[in-house]
Amino acid sequence: MSGSVPPGFDFRRDGAAALEWAARYLEHVGEYPVLARSAPGDVRSRLPATAPDAPEPFADVLRDLDEVLVPALTHWQSPRFFSYFSVTASEPGIVAELLAAALNQVAFIWRASPAATELELHVVDWLRDLLGLPAGWHGHIEDTASTSTLAALVAARHLTGRTAVVFSEHAHSSVEKAARLLGLEPRKLPTDDAYALRPADVEAELARGGVAAVVATVGTTSVTSVDPVAALAGPCADAGAWLHVDAAYAGAAWVCPELRWSQEGVERADSLVVNPHKWMLTPMDCSVVWTRRPDVFREAFTLVPEYLRTSDEAESLSDYGPALGRRFRALKLWTVIRCFGREGLQEHVREGIRLAELFERWVEEADGWGVVAPRRFSLVCFRREGSDEDNLALLEAVNASGEIFITHTRLDGRVALRLAVGNARTTEEDVGRAWDVLRREAAALRA
Amino acid sequence: MSGSVPPGFDFRRDGAAALEWAARYLEHVGEYPVLARSAPGDVRSRLPATAPDAPEPFADVLRDLDEVLVPALTHWQSPRFFSYFSVTASEPGIVAELLAAALNQVAFIWRASPAATELELHVVDWLRDLLGLPAGWHGHIEDTASTSTLAALVAARHLTGRTAVVFSEHAHSSVEKAARLLGLEPRKLPTDDAYALRPADVEAELARGGVAAVVATVGTTSVTSVDPVAALAGPCADAGAWLHVDAAYAGAAWVCPELRWSQEGVERADSLVVNPHKWMLTPMDCSVVWTRRPDVFREAFTLVPEYLRTSDEAESLSDYGPALGRRFRALKLWTVIRCFGREGLQEHVREGIRLAELFERWVEEADGWGVVAPRRFSLVCFRREGSDEDNLALLEAVNASGEIFITHTRLDGRVALRLAVGNARTTEEDVGRAWDVLRREAAALRA
Repeated sequence: MSGSVPPGFDFRRDGAAALEWAARYLEHVGEYPVLARSAPGDVRSRLPATAPDAPEPFADVLRDLDEVLVPALTHWQSPRFFSYFSVTASEPGIVAELLAAALNQVAFIWRASPAATELELHVVDWLRDLLGLPAGWHGHIEDTASTSTLAALVAARHLTGRTAVVFSEHAHSSVEKAARLLGLEPRKLPTDDAYALRPADVEAELARGGVAAVVATVGTTSVTSVDPVAALAGPCADAGAWLHVDAAYAGAAWVCPELRWSQEGVERADSLVVNPHKWMLTPMDCSVVWTRRPDVFREAFTLVPEYLRTSDEAESLSDYGPALGRRFRALKLWTVIRCFGREGLQEHVREGIRLAELFERWVEEADGWGVVAPRRFSLVCFRREGSDEDNLALLEAVNASGEIFITHTRLDGRVALRLAVGNARTTEEDVGRAWDVLRREAAALRA
Repeated sequence: MSGSVPPGFDFRRDGAAALEWAARYLEHVGEYPVLARSAPGDVRSRLPATAPDAPEPFADVLRDLDEVLVPALTHWQSPRFFSYFSVTASEPGIVAELLAAALNQVAFIWRASPAATELELHVVDWLRDLLGLPAGWHGHIEDTASTSTLAALVAARHLTGRTAVVFSEHAHSSVEKAARLLGLEPRKLPTDDAYALRPADVEAELARGGVAAVVATVGTTSVTSVDPVAALAGPCADAGAWLHVDAAYAGAAWVCPELRWSQEGVERADSLVVNPHKWMLTPMDCSVVWTRRPDVFREAFTLVPEYLRTSDEAESLSDYGPALGRRFRALKLWTVIRCFGREGLQEHVREGIRLAELFERWVEEADGWGVVAPRRFSLVCFRREGSDEDNLALLEAVNASGEIFITHTRLDGRVALRLAVGNARTTEEDVGRAWDVLRREAAALRA
């Protein structure tokens, strides 16, 4: 017996039990209340106050998973999860995570894992080409877009020596958070009628000076608006400011040529982030950052202590971001891309958009409902007639039903409800159910 | 059929194939050359230049894993991996990662996953108590110690408004990297004969002023030296400087009361990092950071946009670190702690130390070999008589044998070889084999 296997544990038996648990969970995930029905502290109150002294059977872990944890999960894998950006851990991606855990690679330098290092470099090249991005861009994988954007801003500061970051009020909170962490000055700009940056405003900031980076978003979190990257690229280049594009969600859409209207100008960016763990069937976490200036990333991040010094000339991925250790995340991305193929990835995006269009039409055609922002991809922002309070009450009611989970945002100061399609398990029936629940609860609130 | 399952894929069948692949891999991992026998570019040259258009069978992924990737893996799970810090993804931890991927929780705020949020808070409390740390400390999980230390330095800068960070020349490279990223001034100090910070040197830096944080290491990467935390705590408190303790590797040892000599003074730290993915049987990635000042972390990191605003009062883990999205890492740590129990965790640490002591004794008693630094935990630093070049040649030779993989460092300017025990699959026979290989290759080089 190996010291990595505790008494009573059997990898084949307990692994098969976990696999069967996962299979049943995914088969039945649509039957749970989507938003957890749990009060703060519920889970902790049901867990022992201290760790066990002696080993416990894995079966007990699975039992407590069912009894204590599942009731307090918000089911991101549910076909009726329409919140934030709806994501999918596809079955091939899940299986690949099992393999990655078994291999337990820690690929901080090439020789520590040539396979993980080269597969990562290779698969992000595959993805770059799938998305129609410029040949030659260098990519690597971080955990989340927060880290990817942080890395880009570090590179921008390193190159320019400047300390301001320009972005829109609809940019993701991670941009402001990264700026704050790095001690950079955030300059948050208002947006136009379509919730996008106005080029003239950005040019004014560039003229004010001190701008290390402009962050443009393709597919903002609130409303999936698209900043005019093409119009920003020239002024950024002229001012010597770094242009970072956050397409964490919407970048996946570029696998479909008909959606590359939203990519215009991105080829002139200095860096770009797209998260395959959002709209590309890959389990958390997997955020890809590409750059046409890998030398600047390397200069900003390389720091090799003696105990990591080797004679080989190969590239090390820790030279491109904040962390030294890194998991074998490329394995799941490789598996997902291969098992779905370009066609499968396209189908997933197109189906998400088709379902969002369907919902959009229902809302537009219904009395007392309205779409409140242009639908760009698979998110619909809408309202029921009435006050903000009415809409927030409706939000609470539909989420309390357990049948769907949606979230809200605020556009021009008014509450907007958000229905984000993106889970690959979502069918037309699920979107229809969402619409039924919304109308039913709205009617109940009015009565 | 669900859109998350591509044509030809069957989760039960392909999952079982992956599980069997992993089981066989772990059974046979000791038979591979430990350090990859691969030249830069080998892997990429064997992969197709572009992604497939149509879906491919998962069996092809497993085939290429065997044929293309395995030969280019450095086998971190091998019982004769003695490099860096030797780590273990235990079988219960691997199975838990499968479950975490299937659940695909994205726990950025409490309601997005009450279960993942509360289990994380709970299991780090369990671990805090297992390690004998102060009751009441607040913990959470980051990916790696690089991020944990970065977070601690952000908190330190926020609290103090100062900009210098003091640490020893043997502190982990991530400390200097984090300081550089944050635009802080690194002040790297030389060490004493035992490779530890001298309190007088630190006091001098504190007197110079501007010190946001002192980073003390318990178990440095090069040599597992222990900075005198107890002697540093008072001066740091008097000067209003943050004291961060990096016990990423050695903190796991505190599960054994007899090893808590190395914990002296840690109870007075402001923050502490311990990585269960190092010496605590947990797959990459899992780094726990505790603090007695959670309020400072929250002030430094909280930033809640409208689309994440909720009415509940519960704690959100993204308020404690740089990233917003987060995987369900607590699940594997919970599973590992339960399946091994306190006793199993203790046994793992004690066996690592026993094997390191054994190797240390062999080296000490052999003519022409010497231990070059005090052994504190499960790492032995040693040399063969002769020049640095001789020792580096020996290093190359033993690693080229494929039988073991060790690394080197530089102590007082001289090369030292490092044998790090820590893989739970390592037996006395494996350590004996390492010693045989070293003597054999040394003799061959002399001849």
